[in-house]
Amino acid sequence: MRIESRSSVGPWRSEARVRAWEARTALALTGLAVLFLAVYAIPILWPDLPAGWRSRCEVANVLIWAAFAADFAIRIAIHPRRWAFVRTHLFDLAVLLLPVLRPLRALRVVTAVLALGRRGGAWARGRLAVYVGGTTVLLVVVAALAVLDAERGHPDSNIGSYPDALWWAAVTITTVGYGDHFPVTVAGKWVALGLMVGGIGLIGFVTGTLASWIVDRVSTADRPQDATKADIEAVLAELAALRAEVNQLRSPS
Amino acid sequence: MRIESRSSVGPWRSEARVRAWEARTALALTGLAVLFLAVYAIPILWPDLPAGWRSRCEVANVLIWAAFAADFAIRIAIHPRRWAFVRTHLFDLAVLLLPVLRPLRALRVVTAVLALGRRGGAWARGRLAVYVGGTTVLLVVVAALAVLDAERGHPDSNIGSYPDALWWAAVTITTVGYGDHFPVTVAGKWVALGLMVGGIGLIGFVTGTLASWIVDRVSTADRPQDATKADIEAVLAELAALRAEVNQLRSPS
Amino acid sequence: MRIESRSSVGPWRSEARVRAWEARTALALTGLAVLFLAVYAIPILWPDLPAGWRSRCEVANVLIWAAFAADFAIRIAIHPRRWAFVRTHLFDLAVLLLPVLRPLRALRVVTAVLALGRRGGAWARGRLAVYVGGTTVLLVVVAALAVLDAERGHPDSNIGSYPDALWWAAVTITTVGYGDHFPVTVAGKWVALGLMVGGIGLIGFVTGTLASWIVDRVSTADRPQDATKADIEAVLAELAALRAEVNQLRSPS
Amino acid sequence: MRIESRSSVGPWRSEARVRAWEARTALALTGLAVLFLAVYAIPILWPDLPAGWRSRCEVANVLIWAAFAADFAIRIAIHPRRWAFVRTHLFDLAVLLLPVLRPLRALRVVTAVLALGRRGGAWARGRLAVYVGGTTVLLVVVAALAVLDAERGHPDSNIGSYPDALWWAAVTITTVGYGDHFPVTVAGKWVALGLMVGGIGLIGFVTGTLASWIVDRVSTADRPQDATKADIEAVLAELAALRAEVNQLRSPS
Repeated sequence: MRIESRSSVGPWRSEARVRAWEARTALALTGLAVLFLAVYAIPILWPDLPAGWRSRCEVANVLIWAAFAADFAIRIAIHPRRWAFVRTHLFDLAVLLLPVLRPLRALRVVTAVLALGRRGGAWARGRLAVYVGGTTVLLVVVAALAVLDAERGHPDSNIGSYPDALWWAAVTITTVGYGDHFPVTVAGKWVALGLMVGGIGLIGFVTGTLASWIVDRVSTADRPQDATKADIEAVLAELAALRAEVNQLRSPS
Repeated sequence: MRIESRSSVGPWRSEARVRAWEARTALALTGLAVLFLAVYAIPILWPDLPAGWRSRCEVANVLIWAAFAADFAIRIAIHPRRWAFVRTHLFDLAVLLLPVLRPLRALRVVTAVLALGRRGGAWARGRLAVYVGGTTVLLVVVAALAVLDAERGHPDSNIGSYPDALWWAAVTITTVGYGDHFPVTVAGKWVALGLMVGGIGLIGFVTGTLASWIVDRVSTADRPQDATKADIEAVLAELAALRAEVNQLRSPS
Repeated sequence: MRIESRSSVGPWRSEARVRAWEARTALALTGLAVLFLAVYAIPILWPDLPAGWRSRCEVANVLIWAAFAADFAIRIAIHPRRWAFVRTHLFDLAVLLLPVLRPLRALRVVTAVLALGRRGGAWARGRLAVYVGGTTVLLVVVAALAVLDAERGHPDSNIGSYPDALWWAAVTITTVGYGDHFPVTVAGKWVALGLMVGGIGLIGFVTGTLASWIVDRVSTADRPQDATKADIEAVLAELAALRAEVNQLRSPS
Repeated sequence: MRIESRSSVGPWRSEARVRAWEARTALALTGLAVLFLAVYAIPILWPDLPAGWRSRCEVANVLIWAAFAADFAIRIAIHPRRWAFVRTHLFDLAVLLLPVLRPLRALRVVTAVLALGRRGGAWARGRLAVYVGGTTVLLVVVAALAVLDAERGHPDSNIGSYPDALWWAAVTITTVGYGDHFPVTVAGKWVALGLMVGGIGLIGFVTGTLASWIVDRVSTADRPQDATKADIEAVLAELAALRAEVNQLRSPS
């Protein structure tokens, strides 16, 4: 009874259990995200897919969404402070609510991978570079699928095939923007907006990483070295030795 | 009489009073800025608005401008060093003088919000990100209104609706620039210039924030820790203890 | 004779004299650069200028170039180590040699201002921002003049007036590049290249300044303060006092 | 026999031998890379080259590739830990495998120069700037050759001459992207992708270098100076002197 009076949550609710659940499900969820990309991409890349396979892909799409929703619900359920968990996982929540808008549904693959990535701990620069590079390629591949899905069939569209869509996505994310291909539908323009914002973020990451690398390389070469904690410890050791000697003076015996 | 000889300004003029006034009026001015956006946007978004409502919006527009001017005049009046106040508030002054150019008037909403933001104290990185993100969205929304106001009616114009104008603003601020929509009037080009300069500033902010985040993350992981003020205080405490012991040696009694 | 044996250069050659000359001529050279801009701009902005005024502008153009060349020659002449001076002033030398290519001549105004700027000492961030902003505006104004000079008269040209040229320059330096105006002549393309390289440098400066401002703001708020030289001096003062007391112990008299 | 038991590699395999080989061959390989550029460029710039010279260029192209492959094989052969060498030289390996795709073959010149550059030691900021600038110019020149090779002959192509191709490359790498010229073939689009990624990297380098320069300039002017290792050494010297005096107290005579 004493435990219950300390806390109103059941004994099966703890942060350690949430972490254990996340570690156990990480691999399966990554696999589901890859499968989601496949069942999303197939009906777009093969427009003349038989209706049976088309509906099977749609069912798989919804089932995978349900699996992600269940994972989120379970993590809320076993967390001791539920509102705090939701507040710090608004990103994961957005991942779940995004598919309501069909043309943006594909971006869920990217956000799912991003959300999985955030489960990890601290970042080294090398791992960060691989992660940013991989996310960028994924963003281009998925945005090209989504824009093709939105634009194909519109009479004024100038994006009619997946190679066209990939080329458009690359030209957009690098902010080159030739204007040989551009979306004309509202859904396609929303996909483009996501890609542009991603492109600016990408440039920021690349530039920031390069800048921090250059600042480190250049500053250690040119500037006098800063005093470190280890230096202060050497001073403190020296002081302790001095104090011992002064103590010996006081009681020389 | 002694107080008057110390200072030539009246007792109702002090920096504390200016700060108190700013704190009291901040909420009301933010509300007025939002209202300004509404009365600016409505006649542009509904081109077939009855003339009565159109003129009412124009009157509200001028009245809100007068309220901002009055706030600035009062702050000058109660500040002890008036010229110094004007010199450090050139930005607020520009906000007031901008509406002389009608097509640029809409940008006053953005600058008003920026000026209100500057009344706050220090910035944390998170608050800065929210502020930059919000300003960017506001800049896009307002620039799209202004460019639509300037371009609609021109025979060569290729921006004819608000969705077109929003899409143009997003493509411009990210420096993608497809060229499917672009301003052809002089007023529209000035709006575009403001948007481009804002876009570069935005990229600078995003990149700078990411860079400072990466520099922090990477450097604390890889580099030896720098000596801090707390370390020096430990050394000084050790020295003080040693000095006390030496003092005891001198007067051992 | 002893002085002459120490050095083979005449007594009228010294770095102090070069600095004195530069301080004395700075104002006059800035005035000449402004005049250069005027005599360069007038024949381009008024294509139907009478031939007499046109040739007078051309003569003034050449005379101002000669004045800059004379200034450089004098500075070489009175410097004690002539080759070292040329090696560290390759930028000024390029400013003088650029006008050989007529379409690029206008960029000399920008480079002249840059060269004058380099005569100053250290940079504060605020002064740097004003300098970068001013240089950018000057670069846009001058590049628009140069591209108009190069493009006007070409049958396929789509830049036919100075407002068009200014708009093109702004769209290019911000790397937006709508494609509504672009140079078609070789000379115009070289001007565009200069503007693009300038645009990247500008973004770099703006981003770098913002990044350094954010790094400063954020790091002083979040991080423990680093130990400064002043802290170390407090430690040394404390040690000196302690040593004085120990000395008194040795000779207590 | 004892040496053999310590290590299974022959005595002719050591890192010192690899370094000696690299130092000896650096000049020859740089010369071969320049020659490669020549034999690659000539058949593209002179489309009506006689078939004899065309095939001679192709033979030289293959022979130079073989020389680079032999250099890599020799470095693997004389390195004591072969797999570690391959793992840390994946970039050099990619340089060798790239030419399988003919249109991308030209980029090997850039990567070869990059790979040679990596053989050097630490970077100073000035050397880095020269290296980045040189690589950028080389990337533009080579990408223009490759895109001309890919696009010429295609009926819809809008890049028909080397000046056109150079202008397209400059407009692309700066991310301006007017849209007056753009690749329409798959090979040309791959070349464009390489150029865009290079352009973002270039902006990152330029921005990072400028940022680190500004951070250094501004921080040393505005901020209190950090405590350096030299300061700590002054404290330690002072402490040693004090300790010597205390020691004299203990054994005064």
